[in-house]
Order: sequence, then C-alpha cells, then structure tokens
Amino acid sequence: MTAPSPGRPLSHTERTRHRRLREQGSLDRAELDAVLAAGFVCHLGVTVDGTVMVVPTVYGSDGSTLYFHGSVASRSLVASPGTTVCVTVTHVDGLVLARSVFEHGINYRSAMIYGVPRLVTDEEEKLAGLRCLTEQSAPGQWDYARRPSRKELAATALLALSLDEASLKIRTGPPDDGDTPDAELGLWAGVLPLNTSWGALEPAPDLAAALAPPPHLVRRAGAVV
Amino acid sequence: MTAPSPGRPLSHTERTRHRRLREQGSLDRAELDAVLAAGFVCHLGVTVDGTVMVVPTVYGSDGSTLYFHGSVASRSLVASPGTTVCVTVTHVDGLVLARSVFEHGINYRSAMIYGVPRLVTDEEEKLAGLRCLTEQSAPGQWDYARRPSRKELAATALLALSLDEASLKIRTGPPDDGDTPDAELGLWAGVLPLNTSWGALEPAPDLAAALAPPPHLVRRAGAVV
Repeated sequence: MTAPSPGRPLSHTERTRHRRLREQGSLDRAELDAVLAAGFVCHLGVTVDGTVMVVPTVYGSDGSTLYFHGSVASRSLVASPGTTVCVTVTHVDGLVLARSVFEHGINYRSAMIYGVPRLVTDEEEKLAGLRCLTEQSAPGQWDYARRPSRKELAATALLALSLDEASLKIRTGPPDDGDTPDAELGLWAGVLPLNTSWGALEPAPDLAAALAPPPHLVRRAGAVV
Repeated sequence: MTAPSPGRPLSHTERTRHRRLREQGSLDRAELDAVLAAGFVCHLGVTVDGTVMVVPTVYGSDGSTLYFHGSVASRSLVASPGTTVCVTVTHVDGLVLARSVFEHGINYRSAMIYGVPRLVTDEEEKLAGLRCLTEQSAPGQWDYARRPSRKELAATALLALSLDEASLKIRTGPPDDGDTPDAELGLWAGVLPLNTSWGALEPAPDLAAALAPPPHLVRRAGAVV
C-alpha cells in the first residue's frame, strides 16, 4: 500500500475503504490528482429508471472538483443531480504475465469518485468548468477556439462532482509468483506494457490548405500520453 | 447511422434505444464483436448496498457471452448475479478539434451491455470462460501458462453476461462545423488521433536470464492495438 502523502487525505468511507486488494489501495491526494490529470474520459455510473448505466464521457478536474457535461436532453445527465453517482477513471498500463493463469493481471491506475453531482447554473462557474473540461484534453484550446455562445451554454448541462470521496487502486511492477513453486516451471514471466500516444494532426478535409495548426496542438502531436 | 449487417441484430429495448446521438448509434452485431475484440478491460456498473459502483475489470467475449471474474470475496462481483448490470467497453480514438469549443468532441467506439449476470458453477464452463478471458488480452497464454488448480478455480468467481442486449456508439471523422459560419474564423480544425500500442516485453527481475519469451508474446510486443 502506498504511503500517505503530506497532503489532504482522501476520505475513507465505507464505500471507498478497500476490503480487498488492500496493498493496491491508496489514499494519496497527489496520486489522485496525477491519475485524473493523465486522462480526459471517465465512466459515469448512474441509476436511470432503476437501472445502472455506465456512460463514457469527457471530464475536467481542477483538483477539488470534477466537471462533466452533455446535452440537457441526456438521460444519464438529467438523472445525475441529486443522486449518488460513481465516476471511474482508468488507465491500463500493461499485462502482468505470470507463470500461472491465476496470477495473471493488469498494471493499471484507477480512481473512483463517489458523490452527488451538482448542476452548475451560475454562468461564470459554467464557463470556468467548461474551460477546465476543454483544457483537460487539449490545453490551449479554450483560448484558441471560439468560446460558447449564450445559446450554446444554455444547451449544455454541466455537472460538478466533489473529489472529497475518492479512492485509488494502482498496480505496478512484475508478476508476484517468482517465489512460488511455479517459478520452477521454466515459463517466461514479465510485463507487456501498453502505451498510449498522440498521433499526427489530421486537418479537416474542408480546411483551407494555408491554415497551419496552432503551436499548442503541434507540440502535443506525437507526444506520449 | 451505420447500416445494419446481415447478422443477428442486437436487441432494441427501451434501455438501448438511442434517444440522442442517433446518428452515432449502431445495432450491428459484427461491429459489436469488433469493439469487444479490440479491448480487454471493461467498466462494470453494479448497485451495491443501494449505491452505484463502476469497477474496471478484465473480460473475455466469445461472441455471444461476455465473461468477467474476480475474487469470490469481491463486493461488486457478489452483488452482480441476479441484478441487472451495465458493462461498458470504450476505446478513445482521438480528439475532435472543431472551430468552436461547443463542437469539440471525441472519436470513440463504445459498447454498452445490459443484463443479469449468471454465476458460472459448472467446472467445464468455468475453464472455458477463463480461457476466453485469458486469451482476450494475451492470445496463446492459456496454452502456455499453468492452468488453474481446483483450489484456484474455487477461489475465482466467474460471471457470464449475455450479449443479447447491447448497444454501440461510434464516432469517427473530422469535426462537423466546416459548413457553419465558424469556418470563416480562420481557425485550424481537425483530429488529433490517440494511438495505443504494445511496448517491449519486460522480463520479471527474478526470471532466469536464459528464459526466452514464447513466440506468441514476442509477436505481440510492439504491435498496434
């Protein structure tokens, strides 16, 4: 289990206490920020008409609040405010290939956040939240692209979820069966890493040929995520 | 909207009917298989003690059934059989960078499967399901690694979820605002692709130096996912 950081610990409720895999659990605030900063798509779990829905959606995190959004007509978003949701962000880092199938696993970093989302209605906070969300995936785009009009703002539902109740699970490193009888089987064991990187920019087909991409996008193309 | 395939159509219940983003919805069985085949980690949404949990977990799909597993002590797995769950598999393919923030989006492929999981108790089916699950992420490993013992089998909960009630959402291609007044803003627009690939094999530190990795893993290292 990762040592706690000097920062504010994450809450430790019945929901986020790790009953199993305790060695993988972490309550480190800086690690949570790092896991959230490394992604931009979460899986939002919400109950709609009595049934669980798990919806992938983009998010932004400012360190204390997670923002997500969608059309005001979206079922999962309309159902969210006032009910407890679970938002999970997962990065898969590789396959853990042990000597036995039983010990196979995944190297990953995953954050789970529980809470009751709040519908953001204040226009200033809504713009700040949408800025956070836009900058999460493409830093520099908020200042470059055309910002939302009043009509577009009205058509967008923005939800804010506190990061106070969160938990982390992280697994790194090689398989654990090197000190078991399986090590004598003569089988290869190790990790097959999974890497994610940005590709080359693909201009829209209808773009004027003379239009060069802005530096913040040029820098990002080809970079490792 | 993608044209339906000649294959068996996915069911079209109230839950999986696309109320929004209809153009992105798909009921194509072959496309579902392709989305599931391209991954090995899903997000399982399940209600535990009245609260939604969204748990990342590995899966295997044989075209008609999705298998997932875990410790028999896992809360999310114990809660699953007999209740409706939602399993979502998502691949993020790139950022859609439009002229306006409002038209920004993600190119992605996502499958959502609803159903009541069945706890697999038959030993033969359990082995077949675990084989499917192992081969999903690392084809060739089931025949290479040591298979589960009876004791390991007993400690593993395997769940089977029918793929009958599923839906797909897929977005591909450039941003859509090339024919709006925003096209006159002189802003770059296009797609920043996100690529996933397997890295180089990392032998376990305690592995005998003479032990070479098997061909099925050597082939996979460096390959695009």
